[in-house]
Amino acid sequence: MNRVIGHNYDKATMLSKTHTKYIQSLQHKKFRDESNLFIAEGPKVVLDLLASWKFNCKELFVLKDWFTANSKSLVNYTDISVTVIEEFELEKISVLATPHQVLAVFEKRKADNNIDLKDKIILVLDSVQDPGNLGTIIRIADWFGITDMICSIGCADMYNPKVVQSTMGSLGRVNVVYTDLANWLQKNKKIKIYAASLEGSAVQNLKGLKEAILVIGNEAHGISEGVMQWVNEKITIPKTGEAESLNAAVATGIILSHI
Amino acid sequence: MNRVIGHNYDKATMLSKTHTKYIQSLQHKKFRDESNLFIAEGPKVVLDLLASWKFNCKELFVLKDWFTANSKSLVNYTDISVTVIEEFELEKISVLATPHQVLAVFEKRKADNNIDLKDKIILVLDSVQDPGNLGTIIRIADWFGITDMICSIGCADMYNPKVVQSTMGSLGRVNVVYTDLANWLQKNKKIKIYAASLEGSAVQNLKGLKEAILVIGNEAHGISEGVMQWVNEKITIPKTGEAESLNAAVATGIILSHI
Repeated sequence: MNRVIGHNYDKATMLSKTHTKYIQSLQHKKFRDESNLFIAEGPKVVLDLLASWKFNCKELFVLKDWFTANSKSLVNYTDISVTVIEEFELEKISVLATPHQVLAVFEKRKADNNIDLKDKIILVLDSVQDPGNLGTIIRIADWFGITDMICSIGCADMYNPKVVQSTMGSLGRVNVVYTDLANWLQKNKKIKIYAASLEGSAVQNLKGLKEAILVIGNEAHGISEGVMQWVNEKITIPKTGEAESLNAAVATGIILSHI
Repeated sequence: MNRVIGHNYDKATMLSKTHTKYIQSLQHKKFRDESNLFIAEGPKVVLDLLASWKFNCKELFVLKDWFTANSKSLVNYTDISVTVIEEFELEKISVLATPHQVLAVFEKRKADNNIDLKDKIILVLDSVQDPGNLGTIIRIADWFGITDMICSIGCADMYNPKVVQSTMGSLGRVNVVYTDLANWLQKNKKIKIYAASLEGSAVQNLKGLKEAILVIGNEAHGISEGVMQWVNEKITIPKTGEAESLNAAVATGIILSHI
């Protein structure tokens, strides 16, 4: 390990056991909540989060070859502690099956709870529990210019490493708020509330929609009763085949593409 | 373990080490290819594959409670060897983080290479390598009534347990053929070939398309040169936000929903 200050190498040391354990601990929600930190991996995700400025980077761990080839990308971040580590050290702190050059520890950011709903499509998730689905939905939201998402407390944690990785860097561009959904919907019921469902009007009818709240339900159980009571209209993706359902992220993508 | 013949319990024995190892070996492509077998898990996936009749079930391993509650679902399959096992035994042979009641060993089926392309949308995958993506795409195909898919040799194996699980039972309803893609496209170039791309005409223009070949590329590298030379038209999903790309399965779902 070489600690780099202002991106100049310092003396070579090994990543300590304590340091390794502390980074590994961030794989668990409990420790992320306590420390207010999370990890992100891979050049694409890390550089996108650095560039978003919304996340304060605490530490960056990089392989030497990648650092040498990409020091230009880091030139704006000379105040960040960059540590050059060995591959076996990265393997220890990484959650990826194949660790990918760089791992960063970021501070979580405070979600913006005061969302202006005017002329916006707001995405609302009711207990989307699979981290891959949540991350993919954040990425989809970013593709379609959705700036705000409301998640029920039962959703996966947006700072779960699997969520962070599957957002592919979109985490810094979408404001994600965790709250009591039924309560939030009640407060905002002046906006028309749509819900993705296996029945209802066809998604094609949403074309041109400018202002709406769109609720996506749990992967297995759909939308909970407490949330459903605030829904004004169910919408569905017409099916011509036999599959019983669509993946939650795929359904979200399809619905947004028709709006 | 209780072996059940014609669904009556026999004597209690433990799942042997050899038997356990042989089932575990099916997690690897090499052994699936040698034995021509694969595993599927969970009531939904297993019962859908049993019902499709396209897959011959070799062995079924079930927890006692599930078997007692669901023996009616199995009444048509009295010729299948059903073995009642303990939870710790299921944990050993399962690939799931949370094993789910039932695990089956099926024979692979021979893909139908003689596809009639007339009045059909054929889905073609060029090196879609993530098993979750491939499984989700098979499920999407089944939702939209796509009966045939062509995969390049570089795609994930359709019998990889992660693929099987993410199809959610659709594996028995979609014919998946692995072949040399460039070669196959050349042979079928009389049909118009579309490719999902980050540029091209908007997906909304595909509305009402009745006969086409639709190519989806690799998650990171898109469509390979050898395949791209046969493409007649690139299509894209218009973006209003900033994400660099969409997940391959999400893109497939969006495109098919607009056709």
